[in-house]
Amino acid sequence: MSEPLRIALAGLGTVGGGVIRLIEANADLIARRAGRPIVITTVSARNRDKDRGFDVSRYAWEDDMVILGERPDVDVVVELVGGADGPALALARTTFEAGKALVTANKAMIAHHGVELATKAEAAKVALKFEAAVAGGIPVIKGLKEGVAANEIARVYGILNGTCNYILSTMEDTGRDFADVLAEAQAKGYAEADPTFDIDGIDAAHKLSILSSIAFGTAVDFKPVAATGIRRVLAADIAQADVLGYYIRLIGMAETEMDAAGNRRLFQRVHPHLVHRDHPLAHVDGATNAVVAEGNFVGRLLFQGAGAGDGPTASAVVADLIDIARGDIGAPFSIPVAELERAAPAETGHRRGKAYIRFNVADRPGVLAEITAAMRDAGVSIESFIQKGGQDDAPVMVSMVTHEGPESAIAEALRLLDGSPVLAEPPLVMHILGE
Amino acid sequence: MSEPLRIALAGLGTVGGGVIRLIEANADLIARRAGRPIVITTVSARNRDKDRGFDVSRYAWEDDMVILGERPDVDVVVELVGGADGPALALARTTFEAGKALVTANKAMIAHHGVELATKAEAAKVALKFEAAVAGGIPVIKGLKEGVAANEIARVYGILNGTCNYILSTMEDTGRDFADVLAEAQAKGYAEADPTFDIDGIDAAHKLSILSSIAFGTAVDFKPVAATGIRRVLAADIAQADVLGYYIRLIGMAETEMDAAGNRRLFQRVHPHLVHRDHPLAHVDGATNAVVAEGNFVGRLLFQGAGAGDGPTASAVVADLIDIARGDIGAPFSIPVAELERAAPAETGHRRGKAYIRFNVADRPGVLAEITAAMRDAGVSIESFIQKGGQDDAPVMVSMVTHEGPESAIAEALRLLDGSPVLAEPPLVMHILGE
Repeated sequence: MSEPLRIALAGLGTVGGGVIRLIEANADLIARRAGRPIVITTVSARNRDKDRGFDVSRYAWEDDMVILGERPDVDVVVELVGGADGPALALARTTFEAGKALVTANKAMIAHHGVELATKAEAAKVALKFEAAVAGGIPVIKGLKEGVAANEIARVYGILNGTCNYILSTMEDTGRDFADVLAEAQAKGYAEADPTFDIDGIDAAHKLSILSSIAFGTAVDFKPVAATGIRRVLAADIAQADVLGYYIRLIGMAETEMDAAGNRRLFQRVHPHLVHRDHPLAHVDGATNAVVAEGNFVGRLLFQGAGAGDGPTASAVVADLIDIARGDIGAPFSIPVAELERAAPAETGHRRGKAYIRFNVADRPGVLAEITAAMRDAGVSIESFIQKGGQDDAPVMVSMVTHEGPESAIAEALRLLDGSPVLAEPPLVMHILGE
Repeated sequence: MSEPLRIALAGLGTVGGGVIRLIEANADLIARRAGRPIVITTVSARNRDKDRGFDVSRYAWEDDMVILGERPDVDVVVELVGGADGPALALARTTFEAGKALVTANKAMIAHHGVELATKAEAAKVALKFEAAVAGGIPVIKGLKEGVAANEIARVYGILNGTCNYILSTMEDTGRDFADVLAEAQAKGYAEADPTFDIDGIDAAHKLSILSSIAFGTAVDFKPVAATGIRRVLAADIAQADVLGYYIRLIGMAETEMDAAGNRRLFQRVHPHLVHRDHPLAHVDGATNAVVAEGNFVGRLLFQGAGAGDGPTASAVVADLIDIARGDIGAPFSIPVAELERAAPAETGHRRGKAYIRFNVADRPGVLAEITAAMRDAGVSIESFIQKGGQDDAPVMVSMVTHEGPESAIAEALRLLDGSPVLAEPPLVMHILGE
């Protein structure tokens, strides 16, 4: 086992630089733990001459990254290019065709093409590993695939996007509004110039679809994930939640349930939630990620750590490489891809819970009567209700927390109010995270 | 890979029952994830006829548990007998001599004999796994060995004893004193009839020595672990800490450092700490365990979950069995036992930090002057100082938080006060957990 494991690196951005730094800094320790050295032999990126702040001249350069896996001096390709399709996907396919293993941090590609790629990897009897695709440095893929392998998982959920959590917890600490904090996060490099994938929940949805596949043994299925981001959360919502004992967090949640016909259905949703102060996710601040898994014997487990950044992401990439160096191929989604269940998306109307609903309304007589009548007619029972006066002619904020009830009742109440002239904008609904 | 993995179970107490229930309840799922069925063929315990509340008649019974590994119908022995020596150790030795793998939940045995047993397991080229020995169902051994394998670990620490955490958080919630809460915990079965190992920190010290070996690549070395338990923590200390923004938790902590001669030294200590409200460990309540590992690339990771109980412990035992069924032998301590470093224990006097010191003093003139003079003479700088009047002739409680400084200075101050008639009992020192 003293033959080195030879790596090709595709993509030399921040994470690629992190992988190079890590493999160099911790080389001895890695060789000891892996049983053999892990060495980078070849690198590839779009632009050879770009100044990256780190030296890649000691590695062979390959202009055409798609053929990296075909090189005889490469055992494993590390894909850090990103994007669900394009060169990343082409590279993954040619790598498996060449009979080589692939390690990737590419959540979009795994969420969209995970089943196809796992099929190809298993056919070639090589590893496909993607610990870095979910929750950065936190070994949650390994935790689900191996650590809780003895358990039927009832539910997996968590804080899966560091940018959103940074924005929400900064809004919380400073009382500032979303747009303001987002602009600052962009200036500091914590948020992308185009932040859509992060703040609209799509990045979290990618990760959630991967987690739920591994937790439940279902084929990864990104399309049905209902994703709402944090654009519409106001500083006033956060202040209101605080009064009630809650923090607001963007939560990705997945569960399975049986439908009336006895078929297993998959529920996957990314949505801002009110999280009670006593729940461990309430205290996850800044760019941190955290994942909770609930197993039928282990109970509730929490994994928490840095969800992004070059160091943590490189840590996850190299952990996968060490597993491969040790001879662990494994099934990419824990069980063979042919055995993954194709579960239809679950209905949501019958899901029961408490919710926070916030209305911005015109300040005129009869507004409260109209809202409360709609709630009554839809069968929504209200636990607490707060109206905060607007100044002058500004809209007034009315927020409420419902008693536990079906989601369909809230949808019906909002339908009854739809188009009402008293609403200055559509109401915002946030679910309250249950025990 | 369709041959079943055949298990012998030694010890049929609570955890043994949990393992049986789990393997039966989740048999299909385990077979799918492990690639083959895991079946119990043989069981053994001290008393065959005891009513255990579960049926073991379908398994072969072996009277002499020490020879379980020699049976031809056994691939892996699961040792759930407990105790550092005695039958557990004899069983472990004969199992490796017979060339069979061992899975154990026995922290005391691994803490005391881990190096010997790992040597025997490696020589026999079989697995020795002990996920269940540390932090119950939390996959923290796997997390350290594999999840953060790419990192140099700077520090590993956490809440390692559920009984102590239950007692401390109940004292916190109810304002009741230690003895009272302990008695209740014993009545409820949360604490043993003889609670010494738990409340004096020995159980946590066993677990800490195992964690530090894996984190740092050092030979497991239990003897030098300095362990102080929670017997002397008062409800008044908890109330005082709360005023200052802290919770009290029993923390096991391990670090390595270089001594003046350039040799690596190992620091291992179990001690009640003040944990700031903003630290994730502050919110770990009840019988929960939590482990923090700090890596040079991944940053700070937290693993949290149930630290004991039959379900969580069985979850960890069967996760080890699934790894073995998948063909993972691995080195018991992550790197081959021959490469484990023998690190001498670190000195502690130069360790810098803040501390909480509580005195019970006689209520008479000059007491504060004597205490503060000792602090001044030892070079201990005081950040906050609170005296709470006792009633009538009861001793008065004086508590203080020091500025950051070396531990040797506090030791010197206490030496100066040693034997002073103003002290009703020896002072209690608790360290404050740093960032």
